[in-house]
Amino acid sequence: MSEAHRVVIVGGGFGGLYAAKSLGRAPISLTLIDRRNFHLFQPLLYQVATGGLSPGEIASPLRHVLQKQRNTQVLLGEMVDLDVENRRVILRDGEAPYDDLIVATGATHHYFGNDQWEPLAPGLKTIEDATAIRRRVLLAFERAERETDPEKRHAWLTFVIVGGGPTGVELAGALGEIANDTLRHDFRHINPAEARIILIEGEGRILPPFSPDLSAKAEKQLVSLGVKSLTGARVTNIEEQGVTVKCGGKDEHIPTRTVLWAAGVKASGLGKVLADRAGAQLDRAGRVLVEPDLSVPGHPEIHVIGDLANFAHQGGKPLPGVAPVAMQQGRYVARLIQEKLRGKPVPPFHYFNKGNLATIGRNRAVAEFGKLHLSGFPAWFVWVFVHLMYIVEFENRLLVLVEWVFNYVTRNRGARLITNEKP
Amino acid sequence: MSEAHRVVIVGGGFGGLYAAKSLGRAPISLTLIDRRNFHLFQPLLYQVATGGLSPGEIASPLRHVLQKQRNTQVLLGEMVDLDVENRRVILRDGEAPYDDLIVATGATHHYFGNDQWEPLAPGLKTIEDATAIRRRVLLAFERAERETDPEKRHAWLTFVIVGGGPTGVELAGALGEIANDTLRHDFRHINPAEARIILIEGEGRILPPFSPDLSAKAEKQLVSLGVKSLTGARVTNIEEQGVTVKCGGKDEHIPTRTVLWAAGVKASGLGKVLADRAGAQLDRAGRVLVEPDLSVPGHPEIHVIGDLANFAHQGGKPLPGVAPVAMQQGRYVARLIQEKLRGKPVPPFHYFNKGNLATIGRNRAVAEFGKLHLSGFPAWFVWVFVHLMYIVEFENRLLVLVEWVFNYVTRNRGARLITNEKP
Repeated sequence: MSEAHRVVIVGGGFGGLYAAKSLGRAPISLTLIDRRNFHLFQPLLYQVATGGLSPGEIASPLRHVLQKQRNTQVLLGEMVDLDVENRRVILRDGEAPYDDLIVATGATHHYFGNDQWEPLAPGLKTIEDATAIRRRVLLAFERAERETDPEKRHAWLTFVIVGGGPTGVELAGALGEIANDTLRHDFRHINPAEARIILIEGEGRILPPFSPDLSAKAEKQLVSLGVKSLTGARVTNIEEQGVTVKCGGKDEHIPTRTVLWAAGVKASGLGKVLADRAGAQLDRAGRVLVEPDLSVPGHPEIHVIGDLANFAHQGGKPLPGVAPVAMQQGRYVARLIQEKLRGKPVPPFHYFNKGNLATIGRNRAVAEFGKLHLSGFPAWFVWVFVHLMYIVEFENRLLVLVEWVFNYVTRNRGARLITNEKP
Repeated sequence: MSEAHRVVIVGGGFGGLYAAKSLGRAPISLTLIDRRNFHLFQPLLYQVATGGLSPGEIASPLRHVLQKQRNTQVLLGEMVDLDVENRRVILRDGEAPYDDLIVATGATHHYFGNDQWEPLAPGLKTIEDATAIRRRVLLAFERAERETDPEKRHAWLTFVIVGGGPTGVELAGALGEIANDTLRHDFRHINPAEARIILIEGEGRILPPFSPDLSAKAEKQLVSLGVKSLTGARVTNIEEQGVTVKCGGKDEHIPTRTVLWAAGVKASGLGKVLADRAGAQLDRAGRVLVEPDLSVPGHPEIHVIGDLANFAHQGGKPLPGVAPVAMQQGRYVARLIQEKLRGKPVPPFHYFNKGNLATIGRNRAVAEFGKLHLSGFPAWFVWVFVHLMYIVEFENRLLVLVEWVFNYVTRNRGARLITNEKP
């Protein structure tokens, strides 16, 4: 028996996992490598950060998801280097030979050269980020309850979110719900509804990828949750006691004890490895400039997909770092590899944009499908439906549905635990 | 208006929480102090440790549980000392004056003078313990999958549980299910069913609190899950690469990379504070010897309940450190305080033992209600029913029920995530 064609996928996010699933019946030997043992349904991560869901409800063990694929093995490991000549992925503790390689390691936070802000203003990319943010937010209310100095109390009750894209808007909306609704009767010395939630966005309006009318509607819905947005504003400093913002030419200091970062992302460090070893070109965010077929120029056997890829062959601007792009790219590369084995050519990748969605809170969202613009309950309903459709791919779909219905009916946020802190 | 009678409860476990709930309508001013912001349903903690449930599903925010009690405030804080004369609880960052004090801070692991074993053999008392054990167990299988040396692989696939009481038996049973069932199709280089699970018990049989016939039946059910029990065995050493056990006069070395501790508990350190400040007597496990009304001798205003109390006025032996004892004691002290305010005497505390239950796995358990002894499915059914009845007290009861039914039908353990490790 001849050796099967070896495909290695690095990264089990939307891109990598959809590639793996699409290759499930191919006559190949498939290895999926990830540092974590689970796939994370990142669009719902803000729910974990705000106590609505538990980590287990938005994560699925990769081995379990791919259990039935006879041609597939899952490896818990970290890619640190690449041997292009011998076609080997170098892991921290081993190696994996390939004939085709798919790199899908995504992106991480980016503090625009202010890395000292990272411990002060955590971002939201991992399960650990989410539970850390949850801990911070809940502890801020606890500290406010115990604080007798009105100014200090005010700072504990001020929450600043940097970045008015979908993640920042989701976080701000969820914080608004927590303050106005979830915690309403929980304290005796403070009124959680007095919390100030401030959303800072550098552009002239929040949700810049949406059309202006929807940005305005999103802002209105945020206001109804007590969220104030500060647009055209740039954060110039973050300290433990507050944030300094440049807005309309002048500096403003906002005393706060909780800053959350939803502003910038930078591609995974493996972009650099691909640049060094395979001569890939990177953009300013560290993304790999890929060919129309998502390969690295000069290396048709190396494919880069998802947030790590800069695909600029459609409309000139690179595709956004969202789950649908990664999923479609994963499926495309899976098809490309199979057709290549059959000696058939495949047309360039083409992203089919189904629309833009951002949720703000219970019954609040905005949605844009071409010329169809929705906001409020209809948009929220579409958002829930679309996310359930996608999560149906994974094992815990039913439970998340039940949990959502339950939380919707009871306005419950039962997962608001302060954990992982030495008491 | 005269000042209300001030009752302070330290600890939000079963004892403290049931005391607080029973005092919900009393004409007093009630303060519940805990280091954590949630009540933990400890009997299901082994399910979190073995990936069956998420932390949020067995924990309820204390503020939420007591939200509707107008006379109650919850304080996130840690008691560090006691001012008996001025009746003040000293917190790490403040103080709380009381007229009646209820101390219910429970117990922690005890390594019998071998504290160096703690990092090598984690116990199961907190949410963080549970996710740490989950990480260790899952990583052991991952390491085995990558290991090519048969001896080392064997050590990764060997799991030792020290302590054959209910917690040890539950952990061993759940590990047996994971190896034989949950992970069955997940790996390509190992067969998880080849895992060795060894339960070490110092006494002559497992589950010593039960009658011998049920111990024998529990052992049989464990064997069917691939668990081997080593009774009359004492752990003499724990190292990173293995455990040494003295058994039948001779030493045996078991190569293993995963040791879990379910052997000993020691009362919370606040027993020492009560000894120093209120002249309380402690037993060898650090528990406070209490009066028949659960007060500290000479201090009718200080009440000690739950795992921290040694109540030996019923049958000579101290009552066991289980949830029903703590709950009944919490309710008793709540009644005592209310009757005292009305000038009425209350008879001594009397524990009503409803029976003993221990679960081993799906359809496997033992139960003892006086002369009625059950095992297998009937005992398991009773166990599920009883635990659901108790969990009904808390908000997330419905979801845990749904999750259980779902896991039962699908044999799912979706929460098997490796978290809180720097990848």
